[in-house]
Amino acid sequence: STEVKGYSNYFGTTLLDRRSDKRIDSKWLSKKQSHPATVYILFSDLNPLVTLSGGTEKLQQPEVRLCRLHHKDVEQCMSQTEEVTLIFLGVDLQLHTNLFTAHNGEALQEGDDDGLVAWFALSINPTSAERFKQKHEDCYFLHPPMPTLLQLPENEAGVVAQARSILAWHSRYRFCPTCGSTTKIEEGGYKKTCVKEDCPSLQGVHNTSYPRVDPVVIMQVIHPDGNHCLLGRQKRFPPGMFTCLAGFVEPGETIEDAVRREVEEETGVKVGHVQYVSCQPWPMPSSLMIGCLAVAVSTEIRVDKNEIEDARWFTREQVVDVLIKGNQRSFFVPPSQAIAHQLIKHWIGMNANL
Amino acid sequence: STEVKGYSNYFGTTLLDRRSDKRIDSKWLSKKQSHPATVYILFSDLNPLVTLSGGTEKLQQPEVRLCRLHHKDVEQCMSQTEEVTLIFLGVDLQLHTNLFTAHNGEALQEGDDDGLVAWFALSINPTSAERFKQKHEDCYFLHPPMPTLLQLPENEAGVVAQARSILAWHSRYRFCPTCGSTTKIEEGGYKKTCVKEDCPSLQGVHNTSYPRVDPVVIMQVIHPDGNHCLLGRQKRFPPGMFTCLAGFVEPGETIEDAVRREVEEETGVKVGHVQYVSCQPWPMPSSLMIGCLAVAVSTEIRVDKNEIEDARWFTREQVVDVLIKGNQRSFFVPPSQAIAHQLIKHWIGMNANL
Ligand SMILES: Nc1ncnc2c1ncn2[C@@H]1O[C@H](COP(=O)(O)O)[C@@H](O)[C@H]1O
Ligand SMILES: Nc1ncnc2c1ncn2[C@@H]1O[C@H](COP(=O)(O)O)[C@@H](O)[C@H]1O
Repeated sequence: STEVKGYSNYFGTTLLDRRSDKRIDSKWLSKKQSHPATVYILFSDLNPLVTLSGGTEKLQQPEVRLCRLHHKDVEQCMSQTEEVTLIFLGVDLQLHTNLFTAHNGEALQEGDDDGLVAWFALSINPTSAERFKQKHEDCYFLHPPMPTLLQLPENEAGVVAQARSILAWHSRYRFCPTCGSTTKIEEGGYKKTCVKEDCPSLQGVHNTSYPRVDPVVIMQVIHPDGNHCLLGRQKRFPPGMFTCLAGFVEPGETIEDAVRREVEEETGVKVGHVQYVSCQPWPMPSSLMIGCLAVAVSTEIRVDKNEIEDARWFTREQVVDVLIKGNQRSFFVPPSQAIAHQLIKHWIGMNANL
Repeated sequence: STEVKGYSNYFGTTLLDRRSDKRIDSKWLSKKQSHPATVYILFSDLNPLVTLSGGTEKLQQPEVRLCRLHHKDVEQCMSQTEEVTLIFLGVDLQLHTNLFTAHNGEALQEGDDDGLVAWFALSINPTSAERFKQKHEDCYFLHPPMPTLLQLPENEAGVVAQARSILAWHSRYRFCPTCGSTTKIEEGGYKKTCVKEDCPSLQGVHNTSYPRVDPVVIMQVIHPDGNHCLLGRQKRFPPGMFTCLAGFVEPGETIEDAVRREVEEETGVKVGHVQYVSCQPWPMPSSLMIGCLAVAVSTEIRVDKNEIEDARWFTREQVVDVLIKGNQRSFFVPPSQAIAHQLIKHWIGMNANL
């Protein structure tokens, strides 16, 4: 499972409790929006605003971190006439307003303050983004998203995965797919409702109103001898990179059958036993990578050139060389933040004396 | 895993190889459409056309089965001016055109026939459906979908799950969510493309063009003592029915975290260890039920009345009584076709002598 010690779950861990019960509490949401302890993270074109920290003083590599802004920092962006999108992300699992000293020394209101520190994601337009960067010279929007998002510390990556997925949904799903009308955002950003009164999407509960999560299977395919694994590469990969096969789960399909179908489609190799290992959200734009081990029952490779460029059986020694000894002359695999890396590593540790 | 002997995987097994490579081969698709061996299954308002079989002669309960139609049966429906939707489902894993004798004695073309028996789902409008039923008195559209779909034999249920999910997508997602224009169906029914030439959805690959699959976690929550499990009920359930807790996976969330969040939201119970067991496609309209065991680390129940009506710890004996001994006086659980039933049964078999 994801929580085996030593396994990272990049994009999976989070600083926050989502508190979905608060999404329909518009009074609470609006109070938190202007609370001085509230944390805002900013996005422009789905890229989060970050800054470099720690590097200069400690002779360490500088670390990329989210800019944690407050209401006073974003007030102006939010009052712009241009469109902004605001998503309630949850409440901080560690911080508490009682422990909080407002950045600018503002006094905290006592009384009905529940002590919860809310986090919001705010997506602003390019003009506001430009203006913002001019005022905050140490901040920049992380771009392109991959592989730069992998520079974030693990817990912040989880918050970004959540925010980016929802924002990508809003940016792509502006119109009601059932009737083509415009929609309005509700429930702290987690719901989208058609504005046309007699639209069939308003009768009953329909997935048209809720964010998409696309399940993807990603699998470490093991040779029947137990001592080789099947890795492939797509044309658009950097030269020399090989990784686990993967593909979208189709409607009406189990995880196990999706694994077998994808492996056979891409490489002609037949898979028998399939076993779930762990999963990872992947915010490009909103996939759920479901990681499995898959045991092959045939070995001949026939690559489908429409899907991948190459696929090969690699020996356990070759993989150990690359993954553990860091010898990347012949080939290399994705970085440790990717579930593919974790799946390959998981296999390395299994039946090692076979 | 789903394939442990004795476990059913209703909606998961299928008669077909999806052959996704054929979806872009429009020549092949159109030849198969008029081939006499091709199997058509009919839908009206997302309900499949079925018939009763076997019952009268063998003193058995009559069995509900899909009506497997051929080109000549549906030719008229397809030439109607009204809208029909046609989905390529795959090719039969058992049948081969060489073995096939056309229903009405038609001779088979030799030569370039590849021997594959294609299956299509055809959705027709209410008028055509009415006309069809008048001509075929022994056939009817299975309605309401639940629980009547559960009357189908397991392998046919898999085909219906696939077809119904895709058809539900087409019926709800008629317009481009990015720009609101109309869309056209492509690739045998698995893709939907915006007709507006400069729509951003046409630049690059976007999930707006592909069918939705909504991952849902469903979990058998086990008491820290190992000898009780947590089952709940919603208001709309039949009186006396209790089942596993469940909920949609959110963007940026792992399966394991979704399990913990949903259990705590609905019942206040905290979960530690989570373990994947098996999954099931659920075509209402297009969910992927991801079944887990979840070990509770707290026991006090506080039911969130907005989400469920009741939740209780049941002893192992109570569950054995209901599930194995069939004594359903105090409560009952969903039928064996539902993954909830399988998860509960799986637990019953675990640590039984604890
Ligand atoms: N993809 C989705 N489809 C339908 N409901 C969703 C989805 N995602 C979240 N929900 C929420 O789940 C509730 C329905 O749950 P249920 O009663 O199990 O169908 C809705 O009221 C929504 O709040
Ligand atoms: N939900 C989806 N989002 C994007 N691509 C999809 C989806 N479902 C199926 N596909 C297919 O997967 C291909 C993209 O795969 P990839 O290159 O891994 O992003 C597309 O060309 C589609 O054929």
